[in-house]
Amino acid sequence: MSMSCMQIALAADPDPLVDIPAGLTSFTLRDIFTNGDVSVGPGGTRATVNVNIFPAMESQSLTYTQFRMKPCGVNLPHTHPRASEMLTLVSGGPLQVGFVDTEGERHIDILYPGDVTIFPRGLLHFELNVGKITALYISALNSQNPGVLTAAGALLNIPTRALATSLNSTIQEVQELEQNMLVYGSNLEMPPPSVCTPGQDITTDF
Amino acid sequence: MSMSCMQIALAADPDPLVDIPAGLTSFTLRDIFTNGDVSVGPGGTRATVNVNIFPAMESQSLTYTQFRMKPCGVNLPHTHPRASEMLTLVSGGPLQVGFVDTEGERHIDILYPGDVTIFPRGLLHFELNVGKITALYISALNSQNPGVLTAAGALLNIPTRALATSLNSTIQEVQELEQNMLVYGSNLEMPPPSVCTPGQDITTDF
Amino acid sequence: MSMSCMQIALAADPDPLVDIPAGLTSFTLRDIFTNGDVSVGPGGTRATVNVNIFPAMESQSLTYTQFRMKPCGVNLPHTHPRASEMLTLVSGGPLQVGFVDTEGERHIDILYPGDVTIFPRGLLHFELNVGKITALYISALNSQNPGVLTAAGALLNIPTRALATSLNSTIQEVQELEQNMLVYGSNLEMPPPSVCTPGQDITTDF
Amino acid sequence: MSMSCMQIALAADPDPLVDIPAGLTSFTLRDIFTNGDVSVGPGGTRATVNVNIFPAMESQSLTYTQFRMKPCGVNLPHTHPRASEMLTLVSGGPLQVGFVDTEGERHIDILYPGDVTIFPRGLLHFELNVGKITALYISALNSQNPGVLTAAGALLNIPTRALATSLNSTIQEVQELEQNMLVYGSNLEMPPPSVCTPGQDITTDF
Amino acid sequence: MSMSCMQIALAADPDPLVDIPAGLTSFTLRDIFTNGDVSVGPGGTRATVNVNIFPAMESQSLTYTQFRMKPCGVNLPHTHPRASEMLTLVSGGPLQVGFVDTEGERHIDILYPGDVTIFPRGLLHFELNVGKITALYISALNSQNPGVLTAAGALLNIPTRALATSLNSTIQEVQELEQNMLVYGSNLEMPPPSVCTPGQDITTDF
Amino acid sequence: MSMSCMQIALAADPDPLVDIPAGLTSFTLRDIFTNGDVSVGPGGTRATVNVNIFPAMESQSLTYTQFRMKPCGVNLPHTHPRASEMLTLVSGGPLQVGFVDTEGERHIDILYPGDVTIFPRGLLHFELNVGKITALYISALNSQNPGVLTAAGALLNIPTRALATSLNSTIQEVQELEQNMLVYGSNLEMPPPSVCTPGQDITTDF
Repeated sequence: MSMSCMQIALAADPDPLVDIPAGLTSFTLRDIFTNGDVSVGPGGTRATVNVNIFPAMESQSLTYTQFRMKPCGVNLPHTHPRASEMLTLVSGGPLQVGFVDTEGERHIDILYPGDVTIFPRGLLHFELNVGKITALYISALNSQNPGVLTAAGALLNIPTRALATSLNSTIQEVQELEQNMLVYGSNLEMPPPSVCTPGQDITTDF
Repeated sequence: MSMSCMQIALAADPDPLVDIPAGLTSFTLRDIFTNGDVSVGPGGTRATVNVNIFPAMESQSLTYTQFRMKPCGVNLPHTHPRASEMLTLVSGGPLQVGFVDTEGERHIDILYPGDVTIFPRGLLHFELNVGKITALYISALNSQNPGVLTAAGALLNIPTRALATSLNSTIQEVQELEQNMLVYGSNLEMPPPSVCTPGQDITTDF
Repeated sequence: MSMSCMQIALAADPDPLVDIPAGLTSFTLRDIFTNGDVSVGPGGTRATVNVNIFPAMESQSLTYTQFRMKPCGVNLPHTHPRASEMLTLVSGGPLQVGFVDTEGERHIDILYPGDVTIFPRGLLHFELNVGKITALYISALNSQNPGVLTAAGALLNIPTRALATSLNSTIQEVQELEQNMLVYGSNLEMPPPSVCTPGQDITTDF
Repeated sequence: MSMSCMQIALAADPDPLVDIPAGLTSFTLRDIFTNGDVSVGPGGTRATVNVNIFPAMESQSLTYTQFRMKPCGVNLPHTHPRASEMLTLVSGGPLQVGFVDTEGERHIDILYPGDVTIFPRGLLHFELNVGKITALYISALNSQNPGVLTAAGALLNIPTRALATSLNSTIQEVQELEQNMLVYGSNLEMPPPSVCTPGQDITTDF
Repeated sequence: MSMSCMQIALAADPDPLVDIPAGLTSFTLRDIFTNGDVSVGPGGTRATVNVNIFPAMESQSLTYTQFRMKPCGVNLPHTHPRASEMLTLVSGGPLQVGFVDTEGERHIDILYPGDVTIFPRGLLHFELNVGKITALYISALNSQNPGVLTAAGALLNIPTRALATSLNSTIQEVQELEQNMLVYGSNLEMPPPSVCTPGQDITTDF
Repeated sequence: MSMSCMQIALAADPDPLVDIPAGLTSFTLRDIFTNGDVSVGPGGTRATVNVNIFPAMESQSLTYTQFRMKPCGVNLPHTHPRASEMLTLVSGGPLQVGFVDTEGERHIDILYPGDVTIFPRGLLHFELNVGKITALYISALNSQNPGVLTAAGALLNIPTRALATSLNSTIQEVQELEQNMLVYGSNLEMPPPSVCTPGQDITTDF
């Protein structure tokens, strides 16, 4: 009885209502790093899909994102408001990854090629190439529009009083933090000088 | 045609599979500020419900949270991984509230008693009593376990290199930020000295 | 194992697919009793929201209704075809509330300020101010369009033969019942003379 | 574009998570009128399935109910808190059927063999055999536990003051209505004398 | 505890968001075999409903299909990509029915009038009238657009190399199979000569 | 208006109800080709995850499968009863892929590294390495238990009469087909001799 319960209790995946969007004849997106939604930052390159550039995704509840992350490159800590994520490292790295849950606990791992990890729905997570080789990794998310909320960027966009309270800081300190981040144009950044050396400190603690 | 489309297109609410959990005879939680899940911080008091203290909530996809927020008290910026939120100010305040969306845009408002606002699923939001009177307000969330991820607390729990990259800061600056927050024991905080004066700057900009 | 089962088995809340409806810039409805969808009846006043007057609700699966119910005022027995409801008494009352489940059992309670109660999806429920002070209470429902089916009104709209069978009554008796209700223009009614005295019979039995 | 919208906008059916419940070897219920969950009343016989007597239904979100309704027999007005219903008359009748929606509008029809009708989720509906021949009809509901709330029975179980207000009646009148219904033991009743003559008044108005 | 778990764990049925599609006044489809979506094949006749011919189905997550299957007639093996199915034999037959699950196990039964069987979501199933009398049976599916994928027809539409591999056959053998099926214009077929004799071999094995 | 409709109409992803399964401390599966659920066939190797070997997947609605497919190797035509699939070719190939929809139309493509394709929920699909280099490709499916129904294998498990009708073949022909497939022990097969030459016929037609 409890066995049966375990098997059926675990979430429910909703259905699309048609096979395919009306009028579509193409179900393949050629070379995601050329024709996808591509972002290039100091830390690396990210290519993803969305329903505007790949209409066949419509109502299929899946998104793919592929990364080429340089040594020391970071995909900044962020949440997806509408999706869980499963990530696999194809080659390169290793990759430091992890998330913080709603109990405030962090769960950090070092991924090697072939490893698969998961970031549960809505939790704060990041990736950092702690190795010496560009990391090629792939993420699948179970929504056609998962959304991305970059944690520091969103936080520093909160009005000043609430933000200063959030950090237990003065208005001046908060404004300095805001200044620091004006240089950011993507989520794929390199650490400030002296923070990271490729291939050193392959650890979950730092 | 498009009218019909508007009416039916908007999300689907799932059903429970039974009326009420088996064996339950009580469907009321007495005085949420006494018997609920109560947190007290420098900024005020929050009382919420969960299925452990109020078993009748089981599978009904709703949570209520009630707040008594002091002048200048802040409910720190946070996200709910599993729920949208609708908030109404009952009395006191006014209350500065708002959220940041996944485009990086912020949407801030000043609430007066009787006003109702909404924080969409998974987006970063906060409340700050900008008035001179304790604010009594109520939030409803459409999950029986919405979860809370306090933004600054979660971010500062990310390993150092990724965190420093996230803030474009040095390791030392990051450690100072971590120090600042060691005093926090709840999400209901008072701003540091000089950041907020009760009843001043009733504005969405600051 | 059964612990794990308990935690994950309880319903699933669906997601919206975008942060916010396209083109929206306002996420607050000012003073629900002025700008909401307001009904005034002999028993009191009800103010609610819907997607036409508050477009930010779109796909967020929540509705708020606020009540100012006079002593002896009744929110007539009704069902919501598409939502569960969580109700909290803010002030005044006390309030007699309750529901009838599909086993035919009734679950009645007397609410005092701060109390929270729940009406499971689709079950018949009502509220009656059994106190001497106008009751201010708030209901949250987990659908953007829960719908309201007033029980007696709907029943008396069933064709005569089925209705008479339903009540085991003659056609004449049924027509008298229909006559009685012609005066009703809202769901917020006062009892007929002699049925209710403010502050008397604060009980779940009557 | 709007065509595509129409096709995909219409609700989402959730999936089971396994093929079949663990350990099950039987997927057929023999003769529903013998082995099903059978109710016999003055108006006819109803046979339905549930997961206790037909475990293969588990997580498949469907229930079947079959009826043999005598001339003038009534399936009393009721709601299903957790399902829509599709009904087809196989033979006999004709059958007067219909529902009342949340606008208070009624939608009544006369069904002949082969006709198919629908009762939307949570709305009040009934069936009455207005013909001279026993009607065999079948209902499918899209939940494994739709629930039944018999409207008059539930309403008369509401405490007296709220009930009297609901009907704009005196306590004495309400108690007479309650007396009338004490004879009821099922939802399948015959009208009181003189209310219905088999084969007469095959109309949607009466 | 485990009792409570069993009751609530079993799938979740989603809600429509309105009572009825805007502007609709008809909720009944007259005589499904005349006005439904009707297919006639050598094996029998199938009549079903869809939202184009029966707009009231919109967002109610149900489809009805009715069959008149001749002795030896077969509803060819097929899957529904978006629905579970519950089937009841009204009269005639008996009917050989069954499905193959994802473990490769088959579950076959002989249905007599009044029997109810279930084909879980997405699994391969069929019906064959093994009796001497035309079988009238009804299927309910829990989607408004379940879809039908006829197994042999779809398989033989796979490109040649993958198809030949699938059957471990030569290209020539595969082309002969394709030739055999060119005569098919519906899913309701009669077996080739000598394969079936009405009323013989009422068994689950053949 | 129709813009807004497009954005919100597209399916709904359900939520988990907890961050992570109770008691879990590991969120990474090491080297899926070693520790995953691995199948080896003549055509290549497949490695996938499931909740038994990777408990962190619980209620996250995602599965990853990785393939190393030899030249001419085929992942036999199959359906997933409970998931859509998004596939990306990482290296090698090219890969012939495609699906057949419920209209009987086939949609075939040749994938090169970096290409992304989609197989909608429940439709018949396959992959065949038409190149000269082992293809490494990855599939994501939006269910934690999508299930696999191998088309030919399931079809040939249907009882003989219905199967012969399905193929418009004699019982003897059907038995020969069954014989052919007795050698199969996995879904990853090599074509029979002469059907496929590595690197020849890189086309969607054959």
